[in-house]
Amino acid sequence: MAGTDRTRARVEEDGPQITLVGPQLGENIGASARAMLNCGLTNMVLVSPREPWPNEKAAKMSSGASEVLDRARLFDGIGAAVGGLNHVYAATTRTRDKTQRVVTPRRAAEEMRRAMAAGEPVGILFGPERSGLTNEDLQHADTVISVPLNPSYTSLNLAQAVLIIGYEWFHAGAAVEPEVLLMHATRPANKEELGFFLARLERELDAAGFFHVEDMRPTMVRNLRTIFQRANLTEQDVRTLHGVVAALVRQRSR
Amino acid sequence: MAGTDRTRARVEEDGPQITLVGPQLGENIGASARAMLNCGLTNMVLVSPREPWPNEKAAKMSSGASEVLDRARLFDGIGAAVGGLNHVYAATTRTRDKTQRVVTPRRAAEEMRRAMAAGEPVGILFGPERSGLTNEDLQHADTVISVPLNPSYTSLNLAQAVLIIGYEWFHAGAAVEPEVLLMHATRPANKEELGFFLARLERELDAAGFFHVEDMRPTMVRNLRTIFQRANLTEQDVRTLHGVVAALVRQRSR
Repeated sequence: MAGTDRTRARVEEDGPQITLVGPQLGENIGASARAMLNCGLTNMVLVSPREPWPNEKAAKMSSGASEVLDRARLFDGIGAAVGGLNHVYAATTRTRDKTQRVVTPRRAAEEMRRAMAAGEPVGILFGPERSGLTNEDLQHADTVISVPLNPSYTSLNLAQAVLIIGYEWFHAGAAVEPEVLLMHATRPANKEELGFFLARLERELDAAGFFHVEDMRPTMVRNLRTIFQRANLTEQDVRTLHGVVAALVRQRSR
Repeated sequence: MAGTDRTRARVEEDGPQITLVGPQLGENIGASARAMLNCGLTNMVLVSPREPWPNEKAAKMSSGASEVLDRARLFDGIGAAVGGLNHVYAATTRTRDKTQRVVTPRRAAEEMRRAMAAGEPVGILFGPERSGLTNEDLQHADTVISVPLNPSYTSLNLAQAVLIIGYEWFHAGAAVEPEVLLMHATRPANKEELGFFLARLERELDAAGFFHVEDMRPTMVRNLRTIFQRANLTEQDVRTLHGVVAALVRQRSR
């Protein structure tokens, strides 16, 4: 089920959820709000900002974009912040030693337009100013957005990263045909449903002694999450996978 | 007149001449130098900056992009500054009551790439922070670059305008793969490996009574295959999934 017409209209109007993970300085939150509004984006989410919120320096820096700050929502974990989304992107300049889908901002913008036109909420994660997103943060994303810039000098600040990705979003315009993914009586799973399944899988694997080398656990968990993130699961798929796990585990009690 | 081969190589390498007309604050010149270098641009020209040049605040703000500032050339009029160029663009957010060719940054980037590949030097004018380019300034330009942004809120600062136009320049020339899947020390699974895993999964599910409604079996099998097909599994992923199935099934014998 795609959203209702009203949900869809609101989702498209606000644009992707710009999710600032652990932003350090209020000024940068304010500057990001300006960058967002320049691009017609108004849906800001803050995950554990370092400074208290609301923040005066953010307000001061946002000049004219207070409507974005006023509506910003606060969460203390990425999981909760992206729970209602169908697709999560992560903006990063570093490459990682893991297998993950990587797209340019332009490609991401087209994909996001298409998803949102179908009523599927989308979000983008931006990491803290100095350190960027951790590998753990990246587990919440389906796709990495890598901004093509001079490889020997990349010094984008937070608001600039928001600006470039937002610019591509705005540029892509609303006139993108929704991609017809054949979904019969189903819809894309949201992150909460996916997270619920992954947690169950990990629990069962734990009980089965799968993580017998404790040092390897984080890597194994990440690999598993990545596999199922990449699959673009529908809500029906997630139910099927629950059935699979249940069936395999049930054998034990026979 | 196209340039010599040597000129052409240098011209393309440096990128378009970024011409800051009457910049007010040294900080903004420094921030623009950073934005330029992010986009591989190194040819900066200053026309009558308000503060004396060289400027300490510019240097301080340019962190790591001093090579751009060190090479910046100073002129006291636009005419002299653009004298050696074949094509001049003007960046502006306002529309003017005069007839002038207006293009997007993307279109401008393509045109500039084409011109410079032919050895024809190109420049872009950026106006003072507060007021922008005057109509008189615009007379030096062949073409206006208008950045498509939220018409009801446009608050780009100088460095941000340089960044967006520079980003399009870089993007137009970068051999950007549309989509990269980062795979370290692994490779995509081949269909044989995938088929082998799926067959095993089905066998185990059969043993577990998963396909208890026989009519539904083909649909269930197809859905399961689709889920794992879509995930673009690597060879390592397939091995992980074998481990998952083995672990879950192993519980039975405990």
